[in-house]
Amino acid sequence: MVVYLIGAGPGDPDLITLKAVKALNIADVVIYDRLANEEILKHAPDKAKLIYVGKKAGEHYKSQDEINEIIINEAKDDNNEIIIRLKGGDPFVFGRGGEEILDLIKENISFEIIPGVTSAIGAPTSVGLPVTHRAIATSFTVVTGHEDPTKDKKQVKWDYTADTIIVLMGIGKIKENTSEMMKYRDPKTPACVIESGTLPNEKIIFGTLENIADKNINTPAILIVGNVIDVFKEINEFKNKKINIS
Amino acid sequence: MVVYLIGAGPGDPDLITLKAVKALNIADVVIYDRLANEEILKHAPDKAKLIYVGKKAGEHYKSQDEINEIIINEAKDDNNEIIIRLKGGDPFVFGRGGEEILDLIKENISFEIIPGVTSAIGAPTSVGLPVTHRAIATSFTVVTGHEDPTKDKKQVKWDYTADTIIVLMGIGKIKENTSEMMKYRDPKTPACVIESGTLPNEKIIFGTLENIADKNINTPAILIVGNVIDVFKEINEFKNKKINIS
Repeated sequence: MVVYLIGAGPGDPDLITLKAVKALNIADVVIYDRLANEEILKHAPDKAKLIYVGKKAGEHYKSQDEINEIIINEAKDDNNEIIIRLKGGDPFVFGRGGEEILDLIKENISFEIIPGVTSAIGAPTSVGLPVTHRAIATSFTVVTGHEDPTKDKKQVKWDYTADTIIVLMGIGKIKENTSEMMKYRDPKTPACVIESGTLPNEKIIFGTLENIADKNINTPAILIVGNVIDVFKEINEFKNKKINIS
Repeated sequence: MVVYLIGAGPGDPDLITLKAVKALNIADVVIYDRLANEEILKHAPDKAKLIYVGKKAGEHYKSQDEINEIIINEAKDDNNEIIIRLKGGDPFVFGRGGEEILDLIKENISFEIIPGVTSAIGAPTSVGLPVTHRAIATSFTVVTGHEDPTKDKKQVKWDYTADTIIVLMGIGKIKENTSEMMKYRDPKTPACVIESGTLPNEKIIFGTLENIADKNINTPAILIVGNVIDVFKEINEFKNKKINIS
């Protein structure tokens, strides 16, 4: 028996890896969060048990402890050989995958981890936004925009010196976060939001650090800040022109 | 006619995306760098033209300008409908993909970009190293360890404040880079090198910021610095124990 912790990628169901598909093909159980696209579940056999542990409108939201308990119970069930824990993006990029693995270790349960394309990189790359670019960005920082509110001490300080900053899950606090960033970065720094990255309803919103928070933004979305946005503008204009011609 | 700029993933040929495989399946031409695993090329049809533009021992190393010229010439050839430019990892994470796209734009050539799992995240995730972890790391920075030596002004300053630092292509300068990082970070900060991540000869080397450079390290390898390494040690010990039992 083995638990596979798998990243499902940034949204587009074809941005899952072959390795993840091969594991899903032989799954007995798939325990999944809210996925950008449930098409991904079709890779599991018809007989596989599918367990949804994500947020549902009006219903109780499963705690991390409850989720870990479900994974462990399924793993201990002798009828199950392959248990898959499926997460959006990459399981170790703000996916709390580390916590789930530590709980499996306590129970002496074997596991494998299959990385996925994180939306932090997959969403910008797909639209043509290079998070690194010669002479413009030789480093990038990925940070959560929604730090665990139950934490005693805040870790996120927004003083990141990397050339490009990518903020995940930060739209709810975008005003607050960009204000903090402006303490360390020019308010005129180009910024950009990618809504529903890699999905059919994907949308790009341009601005600067000082005005991006005032735009009309729908979640899920990621915020990118840095001079690479200027390179992206050139690429995006060309893409739009091509689309208009064809 | 369209040029696909595609990320092949971190090494393991199964860590390519379904979307990349589907594009390779219909390729007329595949222009590729040194890949961690040439198995990936088998997704292209037998009749596809394969053009290697990476480094070869004892031979002339193609410049970025020469590579761009090859892509453009193949794109302008009326016999070619689908031209694939295949790179390791993700094409926009230190892949110079942005430069290739800007050159295509100058020639009015259509393109699509398919992201890949970058080794910066795929290698740590695969071995069980969570680059983010609750209360330990809410941010990570990815940086090149080998800045373009022809640049007038160095951009990499090593003063990154993110919790986890991931250095790509930095083994040749690891002594220099870790010395710089020690100006800003405790020399006892846990560090770890992953050699040949996601490949059969994968190897993990543990140390600290002050001693990791003295270890025997073979390229390709990535360096990870930060307290998440302590979480990883626990995960890695369990995995080794499991392997020794079975």
